[in-house]
Amino acid sequence: MTDRTLLPLVDAPPPERRDAARNREALLRAAEELVEGSCSVENVTMDAVAAKAGVGKGTVFRRFGSREGLMAALLDHSETEWQARVISGPPPLGPGAEPMQRLEAFGRSRLELNLLTADLIRAAGRAGTRSYAAYSFVAMHVRHLMNELGTEGDVALLSTALLAPLEVPILEQQVRVEGISVERIYAAWVDLARRVTQTP
Amino acid sequence: MTDRTLLPLVDAPPPERRDAARNREALLRAAEELVEGSCSVENVTMDAVAAKAGVGKGTVFRRFGSREGLMAALLDHSETEWQARVISGPPPLGPGAEPMQRLEAFGRSRLELNLLTADLIRAAGRAGTRSYAAYSFVAMHVRHLMNELGTEGDVALLSTALLAPLEVPILEQQVRVEGISVERIYAAWVDLARRVTQTP
Repeated sequence: MTDRTLLPLVDAPPPERRDAARNREALLRAAEELVEGSCSVENVTMDAVAAKAGVGKGTVFRRFGSREGLMAALLDHSETEWQARVISGPPPLGPGAEPMQRLEAFGRSRLELNLLTADLIRAAGRAGTRSYAAYSFVAMHVRHLMNELGTEGDVALLSTALLAPLEVPILEQQVRVEGISVERIYAAWVDLARRVTQTP
Repeated sequence: MTDRTLLPLVDAPPPERRDAARNREALLRAAEELVEGSCSVENVTMDAVAAKAGVGKGTVFRRFGSREGLMAALLDHSETEWQARVISGPPPLGPGAEPMQRLEAFGRSRLELNLLTADLIRAAGRAGTRSYAAYSFVAMHVRHLMNELGTEGDVALLSTALLAPLEVPILEQQVRVEGISVERIYAAWVDLARRVTQTP
């Protein structure tokens, strides 16, 4: 108890870094609000983000390097927020619902997230690839729900068949090129999930 | 009958173009034999292809522009040959077998082709993307077999779940990074195909 306050805690960043993180968080929140407000990433310029967050444009550039860098950070941020909702958010996406209800909620929210992030990935240019860690989280979650459902067989490989139709290039082709509705894709995905997991 | 030989037929290219096509075919066959002989695309250099086909290196460069161009042509060529086997080759990949047998043969041969072409795609660099027409053929074939099997539901969307696990990036991750055997992937794919098509 005595000298605790003098010793840095392993998890606590030094004060400057904590300020920088808060700053960064505020800029990302401003950018996110701009995306949500216009339903498009086109209007999210470095100027607009600076104005919304009440800082100079130079600060935004120093923090993210370029608009592509900002888009890549936003991509990462939206993925992390989504993961938090899966881990500890309200059911049925979060814990507390039946596994099939959770699987359906997963499919719907991943579908929506990936359609939104398709634009971010494009805007992020070469910086816009998702980490393997992001895919890995999604794969682990689906395997966990399949195990909860008592799915028999090679669950690790069967899960790829549930994940792949939700991936960005496939959704972009179906929605933006072929004009298939999100409702139809979701209904087919739920049907697929029931067939693969053999849940009536 | 009289002046037929004087009129060019719509499908017949002029003699020079026919020669060029034969030449191109011979070079691609030489490149293909080099790939098969070494089970690797690394040894397939412009020099090696020229030597094997008995022509000067300049001819290979004139025909394909660069090694990347040759790899892209080889990719296209192997896709076309595979399509011909599906359309009119021997069963069970070609016509004449039961639909489930054909679907299984499709899965096995697509799996093998895609693992081989993964190397070609990498070696072809920026030229190394498959055309949408190639994907379209594969999707049409699987939908056709699902209809033959009497699969109910949204066959167009359900078929994406059968196609996605056979795609190059997924196979590369499983085989080259995670070390999963081709046999295990094939067995899981057949199980998946039976679940999705609801074939016992």
